[in-house]
Amino acid sequence: MSTLLARVVTSARTATSSMSPDVDDWLAGRRGQPFESTPIPLDELTRCAGWRFAPGTGNLEHDSGRFFTVEGLHVRTNHGRVEEWWQPVLVQREIAILGILAKEFDGVLHFLLQAKMEPGNAGMVQLSPTVQATPSNYTRVHRGGRTPYVEYFTDPAGDRVLTDVLQSEQGAWFHLKRNRNVVVEVTGDVPPRDDFCWLTLGQIHALLQRRNIVNMDTRSVLGCLLGAAGGPVGGNGSDAASGHRGEPSGRLTMAEVLGWFTRRKSAQQLSARLVPMDSVVGWRREAGRIRREDDGGFSIVGVRARARTREVHGWEQPLLAPHGPTLAGLVVRSIGGRLHALVRAEALPGYLDTVELGPTVRFATDDLDRTPVEHRPEFLDHVLSASGTGSVRYDVVLSEEGGRFLHAETRYLVVEADDGFPLRVPPDFQWVTVEQLLSLVRHSYYLGVELRTLLLCLTGS
Amino acid sequence: MSTLLARVVTSARTATSSMSPDVDDWLAGRRGQPFESTPIPLDELTRCAGWRFAPGTGNLEHDSGRFFTVEGLHVRTNHGRVEEWWQPVLVQREIAILGILAKEFDGVLHFLLQAKMEPGNAGMVQLSPTVQATPSNYTRVHRGGRTPYVEYFTDPAGDRVLTDVLQSEQGAWFHLKRNRNVVVEVTGDVPPRDDFCWLTLGQIHALLQRRNIVNMDTRSVLGCLLGAAGGPVGGNGSDAASGHRGEPSGRLTMAEVLGWFTRRKSAQQLSARLVPMDSVVGWRREAGRIRREDDGGFSIVGVRARARTREVHGWEQPLLAPHGPTLAGLVVRSIGGRLHALVRAEALPGYLDTVELGPTVRFATDDLDRTPVEHRPEFLDHVLSASGTGSVRYDVVLSEEGGRFLHAETRYLVVEADDGFPLRVPPDFQWVTVEQLLSLVRHSYYLGVELRTLLLCLTGS
Repeated sequence: MSTLLARVVTSARTATSSMSPDVDDWLAGRRGQPFESTPIPLDELTRCAGWRFAPGTGNLEHDSGRFFTVEGLHVRTNHGRVEEWWQPVLVQREIAILGILAKEFDGVLHFLLQAKMEPGNAGMVQLSPTVQATPSNYTRVHRGGRTPYVEYFTDPAGDRVLTDVLQSEQGAWFHLKRNRNVVVEVTGDVPPRDDFCWLTLGQIHALLQRRNIVNMDTRSVLGCLLGAAGGPVGGNGSDAASGHRGEPSGRLTMAEVLGWFTRRKSAQQLSARLVPMDSVVGWRREAGRIRREDDGGFSIVGVRARARTREVHGWEQPLLAPHGPTLAGLVVRSIGGRLHALVRAEALPGYLDTVELGPTVRFATDDLDRTPVEHRPEFLDHVLSASGTGSVRYDVVLSEEGGRFLHAETRYLVVEADDGFPLRVPPDFQWVTVEQLLSLVRHSYYLGVELRTLLLCLTGS
Repeated sequence: MSTLLARVVTSARTATSSMSPDVDDWLAGRRGQPFESTPIPLDELTRCAGWRFAPGTGNLEHDSGRFFTVEGLHVRTNHGRVEEWWQPVLVQREIAILGILAKEFDGVLHFLLQAKMEPGNAGMVQLSPTVQATPSNYTRVHRGGRTPYVEYFTDPAGDRVLTDVLQSEQGAWFHLKRNRNVVVEVTGDVPPRDDFCWLTLGQIHALLQRRNIVNMDTRSVLGCLLGAAGGPVGGNGSDAASGHRGEPSGRLTMAEVLGWFTRRKSAQQLSARLVPMDSVVGWRREAGRIRREDDGGFSIVGVRARARTREVHGWEQPLLAPHGPTLAGLVVRSIGGRLHALVRAEALPGYLDTVELGPTVRFATDDLDRTPVEHRPEFLDHVLSASGTGSVRYDVVLSEEGGRFLHAETRYLVVEADDGFPLRVPPDFQWVTVEQLLSLVRHSYYLGVELRTLLLCLTGS
């Protein structure tokens, strides 16, 4: 058998497939189905839809005690402009499966994606992993139908696990959230059900050029798969002096990258403690939502969803609604013949180990007006001014998990630095090769969710 | 420059050094100094020594709010015989530096160790890293002297960082404890102060054959260094089919090991919440200590220490006192020409991500009498019955961190499995090559502290 890397490269170079000859048609059909998602006041959610504000805490939770809760978070940090704040946060202790089935057709790896409706999705239907389900879903707490294909991931005996790694999600909005990012290759017959389609990596990369088609979980899982394959970025990566066999090296050796990351974790102290939602300072519950007193950031809102293709045909739930799009901008540059990315060690209150790697700039554009020029994030102006010029390698709006966030759009932007761009950068930042990032994403909690998306988009562009 | 691996192997093969011609003499001199450590009731600690039981919680804490606290922990799990329990736990949020300076003398890497007194040390003085200090120590909260050599680790600019990785410590006794395990190689002149000595890895391996000489932190840091070097275990480790350059493979590929580890984290659910010490069920504060009602496990006790070689010449503090030694037994076996270790995915309440890899058996021998035969840990009898036979590769009592634990001795035992030993093992267990373990210990939170010690002892024996 050829290496996983060679098979991933072949799949990425395959732009059409007889398994999915007309993706646009199929997708239009899925998107034409009768789905609805309607905002409702939180009071309606708690009056008749199985949710409640828990007495004594004001935390928003489901009567079953499962799914997720909205709780308060009290944060203190020694890093950045604000040293202490309170905020609502989504708490979901269960480890969900984000699982993609892979299979060879005509010698090319295909991935089984699902056109799935989520109430918070921009465009309602996006392409999700084969399985995207919490134990609450697949053990059927909501008494809905069985989660299709879940058995390949709960019991992969006999099939080949290409990658299976826990990764975090949005550390600003989730408390300690982590999910299994898993790809299982099957050899037996797996007929695609309605709403499912076998796609090559090349087809998926083409869809990644379009707004809001490929969902966050699919991007995250495929980013991890590239890490397991170790590519498809070139270079022989040998570095005898590093002492580690076949280890990718660049401006820094891998040991230096790991050492920098450890020192950032030691330097950027942040403590985040769950507190009762009722005790959160600077936020209020009014007009059917939970909002910040200055109306900034995000709100917690309710939605009513109707979809006959989901396990449950109708339901109500809370969502976190950001007040504007986020910019996730990555600066890249060839140094010594290797492509480097300028990543940032970002401390966020929801991260399990405080710091993960993010893009050069991650910024809620809603905050732009209220942020004085001198407090705007490092490199923001560089990334924004490059937009629309020839130095842009990728510039597409994709959205974040529509099962938890309402229309959370992110503009993913990859720009090439020109020669005038500084190589010496502030201590939070580091030039790391794309190969080194691929090597790190095989392990948990190095690359945040936006950087996993950018890694996937960058290697396909 | 030759590779780090080659330099580590050379150091391990160098059994004597002109830098430290008579280690025994030096060590006897250090151990002959006037140190004292006397048990005192907790009430004495809180009456006059800067510690207190916090009103409202009963948590034991220092007046400065720093160092560490003793709090309550409420644990629930779906795994194992006991589904819910309460216990005291040590809480230390600061990331300490466990740092060893390395330097070449006569072409051989030496490591600067310190003969350091800790109040809980078996034998009072053990060999610690060059620096073993929390920010509370090295920023001088206790108003003592400066921590020598700390500047090499807080600001390593110009020196070469050989490894720098956060690792956990005892997940049964510490809540979310993590420390920097760091080795910095210097080229400039570093004169050893009193109590410090340059030793080769070969000299350290010889000292590891003796009871209670090399302390836990030194073992942990050197275990991480072996990971950074990728050795000194042989084998070419190439595995083209895995798709990852130069990746160590054995009975399982690295992708399979990582996938198994992720699935164990998903399967072994455990939630641990800090609660007020006063609300801990099944424990009481009496006769000057905090003890379990059945007197099992461990107690929290007070000690008074006197040592003129420490930054502060005398102090009082609480310690966790286990009621008997722990057995940490590792079964190893050559499979397909490669040495494999039988490791266990162990869920412990203090681990940041619930599960880390432990030895085949980790067992508090104090509990042996009260544990019915049918509930004794898997493989315990095998490990105990091998003891004293030719299949033992390593069998030495070493102790755990004497700054937090009182005489916490662990019997580290490595035994070779005979041909009758099962290759198929229960789902918590896995055969992993020593090379794969070395590759994992470069990253945080894969190998628990006992397995890091065993890895070091195994590769030196």
